Amino acid sequence: MTQPDKTPVGFIGLGIMGRPMAGHILEGGHPLTVHNRTVSKTAELAARGAVVSGTPAEVAARSKIVITMLSDTPDVEQVVAGPQGVIAGIRPGSVVVDMSTISPKMERLLDERLRARDCALVDAPVSGGDVGARNGTLAIMAGGDRQAFERARPVLELMGRSITYCGPSGSGQLAKLCNQILISVTLLGVGEALVFARKSGLDPEVMIQAVSAGAAQSWQLTNLGPRIIERDFAPGFMVDLVQKDLRLVLETCAAAAAALPATALVHQLFASAQAHGSGREGTQSLARVLERMSGLEEGVV
Amino acid sequence: MTQPDKTPVGFIGLGIMGRPMAGHILEGGHPLTVHNRTVSKTAELAARGAVVSGTPAEVAARSKIVITMLSDTPDVEQVVAGPQGVIAGIRPGSVVVDMSTISPKMERLLDERLRARDCALVDAPVSGGDVGARNGTLAIMAGGDRQAFERARPVLELMGRSITYCGPSGSGQLAKLCNQILISVTLLGVGEALVFARKSGLDPEVMIQAVSAGAAQSWQLTNLGPRIIERDFAPGFMVDLVQKDLRLVLETCAAAAAALPATALVHQLFASAQAHGSGREGTQSLARVLERMSGLEEGVV
Repeated sequence: MTQPDKTPVGFIGLGIMGRPMAGHILEGGHPLTVHNRTVSKTAELAARGAVVSGTPAEVAARSKIVITMLSDTPDVEQVVAGPQGVIAGIRPGSVVVDMSTISPKMERLLDERLRARDCALVDAPVSGGDVGARNGTLAIMAGGDRQAFERARPVLELMGRSITYCGPSGSGQLAKLCNQILISVTLLGVGEALVFARKSGLDPEVMIQAVSAGAAQSWQLTNLGPRIIERDFAPGFMVDLVQKDLRLVLETCAAAAAALPATALVHQLFASAQAHGSGREGTQSLARVLERMSGLEEGVV
Repeated sequence: MTQPDKTPVGFIGLGIMGRPMAGHILEGGHPLTVHNRTVSKTAELAARGAVVSGTPAEVAARSKIVITMLSDTPDVEQVVAGPQGVIAGIRPGSVVVDMSTISPKMERLLDERLRARDCALVDAPVSGGDVGARNGTLAIMAGGDRQAFERARPVLELMGRSITYCGPSGSGQLAKLCNQILISVTLLGVGEALVFARKSGLDPEVMIQAVSAGAAQSWQLTNLGPRIIERDFAPGFMVDLVQKDLRLVLETCAAAAAALPATALVHQLFASAQAHGSGREGTQSLARVLERMSGLEEGVV
């Protein structure tokens, strides 16, 4: 299926998001080289024609576009700039696309390092979760050199439905952080409305139906409201991960002297979710924190 | 246009919402009797065939369904239960529909008073603002006796697009209060995301575009986000009115022993908007409170 005229792509980080994303690139006909810390996760892609490389440097040496999809800032720093990292192997004119959600500041630093090698880094975090990754319907928010972004765009289009160029290096991460502020604070409103309904004797399901046609409508209400009512706390997006992102928001914020009282509040309430062992549950577990605060019993809706 | 076989309706409270709502009832062919404290506001409806009555009692005596659309709890108490109020004139078997946003507790009290007269009160607050009132597209959340609600439904359908029966007396108000929690806290998230974008150097318009396709999506973001960017603070829904409603939320909450930290926070931030003379501006003025907190200059986006 690989078409030799297509740009060779490298993919590093084959977690729950990365594996299906890399799969779409393979389906798009690109020669693909992959690397993952846990080698077993490369097996399926290897069986479908991907080359497995032992180090990020080797991946970079074989690719014109190198994609990273990792957990946190130190992982990206290590994979891109560490010993045997991407920079050690990359050829001039290549583009690194970091699709992890990490510090905007780190993206700018790595972009500088890559520019010194006649390369560029595009930061392109995503939203849409594992479902979006599997269906190729991610929302991709990209920052960095515009030309480098345009070179990467055809590959991004294999993975996402909505691709927005947001501005210079770090801008993709900044947009993603805005996304996380919005989902968290909106969810907090949903949780409080549900607590209020239960406490005052209003059927929460009827409440959602009554308000969803108007100005109270949101993705969070429509998608997570019913899951809270059904006590379904399986992760679409995990508390531990939103906490990492909100930490980035508040760090970036502190540097910029911005005050975000509701974001700080929801970060603390998610910390309470973590304290009660809900770190690996979905963000909708925030509702349980609010329920406990108001003395509502678990499981009694 | 009045059809004598249609239920005679009374309408009390011809403000910015009430006037167009009463107009739709007239268009629906119902004989209509109106009353308003400021008599001049009855002129247009009178010219279109409505009868103007001097007191709520007289309105009630001429109607089988009496609608009230007033500002606050004491107004409704006075108009329904005061001297020359609705109860003084109402005939057995009639239904009072209170479409104001007021205390759920007061609705229950008035419902009891009316039941003693073989009548009933349906609480049916609305969302959708003056635009919804003009276009007959309000969302109507109704509580009270189910049969009384069904008798009023054909008249409600002249004014609203989404009509939800929420449960026993007061339930319409409770759903409306949930609506106000949701719009306020969601808007708070929108305001903080916009402050974060501006403070960190991300184009706020690009941010909205980048995040709107996914889990961050909300009516507040789509409709009020752009107005904040354009510095359009004209009221769709006024700060002073949302504050009245949030006060009802927190009062009802205190009685029910529920803790709503974000609702309490946004109530305080709206108080800051009022302190800066934005009480009669739209709720989106909340953004300016957050901007001031972060030292952003007015008018410089």
